[in-house]
Amino acid sequence: MKLSEEIEEVVANKEIDFFNQITSNFKSHPMQLNQTHEADAEIINCKGQSADYLIVKTDGIHEEIDQQLYEDPYLIGWMSVTAVISDLAAVGSEPLGLLLSLQITDNLTKVWLNEFKRGVNQACEIYQTYVLGGDTNISLHTSINATGIATIKYTKPLMRKPIIPGDLIYSTGKLGLGNAYAYNKFFEQIFNIQYKPTARLQESRFIRNFANSCIDTSDGLFPALSILSQLNQVGIKIKTPCQDLLCNLTHQLSQKTAIPAWIFLAGPHGEYELLFTIPASDQQRFEKSCLEFNWQPLLIGEAVSKLVIEFDSENLHISSEPAEIANLYNQAGKDVIQYFKMLMQKQDNWRRNE
Amino acid sequence: MKLSEEIEEVVANKEIDFFNQITSNFKSHPMQLNQTHEADAEIINCKGQSADYLIVKTDGIHEEIDQQLYEDPYLIGWMSVTAVISDLAAVGSEPLGLLLSLQITDNLTKVWLNEFKRGVNQACEIYQTYVLGGDTNISLHTSINATGIATIKYTKPLMRKPIIPGDLIYSTGKLGLGNAYAYNKFFEQIFNIQYKPTARLQESRFIRNFANSCIDTSDGLFPALSILSQLNQVGIKIKTPCQDLLCNLTHQLSQKTAIPAWIFLAGPHGEYELLFTIPASDQQRFEKSCLEFNWQPLLIGEAVSKLVIEFDSENLHISSEPAEIANLYNQAGKDVIQYFKMLMQKQDNWRRNE
Repeated sequence: MKLSEEIEEVVANKEIDFFNQITSNFKSHPMQLNQTHEADAEIINCKGQSADYLIVKTDGIHEEIDQQLYEDPYLIGWMSVTAVISDLAAVGSEPLGLLLSLQITDNLTKVWLNEFKRGVNQACEIYQTYVLGGDTNISLHTSINATGIATIKYTKPLMRKPIIPGDLIYSTGKLGLGNAYAYNKFFEQIFNIQYKPTARLQESRFIRNFANSCIDTSDGLFPALSILSQLNQVGIKIKTPCQDLLCNLTHQLSQKTAIPAWIFLAGPHGEYELLFTIPASDQQRFEKSCLEFNWQPLLIGEAVSKLVIEFDSENLHISSEPAEIANLYNQAGKDVIQYFKMLMQKQDNWRRNE
Repeated sequence: MKLSEEIEEVVANKEIDFFNQITSNFKSHPMQLNQTHEADAEIINCKGQSADYLIVKTDGIHEEIDQQLYEDPYLIGWMSVTAVISDLAAVGSEPLGLLLSLQITDNLTKVWLNEFKRGVNQACEIYQTYVLGGDTNISLHTSINATGIATIKYTKPLMRKPIIPGDLIYSTGKLGLGNAYAYNKFFEQIFNIQYKPTARLQESRFIRNFANSCIDTSDGLFPALSILSQLNQVGIKIKTPCQDLLCNLTHQLSQKTAIPAWIFLAGPHGEYELLFTIPASDQQRFEKSCLEFNWQPLLIGEAVSKLVIEFDSENLHISSEPAEIANLYNQAGKDVIQYFKMLMQKQDNWRRNE
């Protein structure tokens, strides 16, 4: 072998090293026993640390990359962590860390990977969590999978049930930014919409002391309500008009484009708020506590016995089947152009049948 | 909407349901609180169950699918579980369960998915473990990711270190089947080679009471030895001639094709045995215990201070740099034809320089 070939070989190996190391250059969990490559699996010392529940969740950033909804590697890194932390928050758990599985095409540059890593790192810092381990493969197709590990002690896990008629439904914040971002990306860029949601981990620590059930809005409001409705066999009456549930920017976009507010709540690209239910009898105690914590959740509506989702959007009053809006995206074969057309048709039908 | 369209819609939704449910129709962990869709994350009740270490590992079946090394969906299911359980076994832990993330192309049939599921289920049954949760996405590209969760109590975790010169290196079984299978798949089908390795979870429960270090041979023997060598700054003297380390079928294949035995140990498609080290001073006690358990591990060789991997293959005595063989696959750009050429060239060079 010639020297030049040897040098090439060394460089090639360094490249491989770089890829192999991409998931291993994160800040370690203080109780992690092994460093990278030191063991076949990740080892977390938990002596003396008992928990009542172990919480796990696997989630990925696949479609968002395929559809080029996320192109910025920083956002992809941020969202890989945020999506799974949001689920861990929705069950009221305390994240221990996460595992990242990267499949990346070999045309991605070091800049891409460093930006991805920066997104992961900043998200981990915000949530005070850690990358425990990972796996990187060069593939024909880029996709990211994250698995979150968490525990619950002292409180009960939050599930998407039980909900009974009369329970009040709140959101941790205003909604619709995810879909406004998608509209801007896929149709016309009217505003400069920055999308970088924060999983509601802090709020979850407060909510878990009051709520009976919880779900995140990662797939949008109507898909989340549809799941709650079907699982609990209750209907949902949205009492706040849809336009008042929208965050400012989405509200402006809705007005400017004359796209009705409910469409920005239809999904499937959500905003990672938490939806949770409080028994009506606890409303006063809950809202008083919120005030003491200087926090105001958004009252969405209430569970009702009739199996419909009822809402007002601008001057329309609509009563829909629980899954009617949530199913549209899949019915459109996940084609965003077709999906948007179907949403607008739905609006036309409702207006005509009024 | 016409009735026929409505029917189509229902069918379309059922298809989606089928895909969504694919990871959710497995036998539940007895302590899992939530059923599918009932919570944003999986909730395992572990009250009163303390552990000293929490073990996590994420691993995927990516390249094997891309390269069509695995085409049988049953094998893909089986290996998705086995690969991660093997890692959990290598650290001496007790699996709690796993999370599956599937990305599948939409041309895969129900037969494919059912076979995949059968593979997953049978593997879970063998290892007495559970699919805790999962995530399924339709993608342009099929790949599977599995994350294993396990615990350790009473014993110490096994890592790939410490190893000092003099330590004896054993394998839980004969080697080379993975590469023989790959040779048969990629080059010429000489025998009908059934490849369905079992992770050495049972053996791990015995080994962990004696071993100082452990690694699995999922990437082949030489890659595993290369990691142990580099991590511990020791060399390795393989005392048993390579042809005697091969399982029967691989040995026959080696003879029939005149491909030297060491090439079937070079990787990167391994056989999921465990390699582990025993201090020389413990050899007698360890081997006596093995006899009592009616089990005989395979003595591979020992750690030495000189940083080389030394071995005999047929009539050649070879002393190689620790990573020399392990790096070849990456140097060949993971191109199996090129890789095989480079292995044979290596053999020629060694023979010439003898």
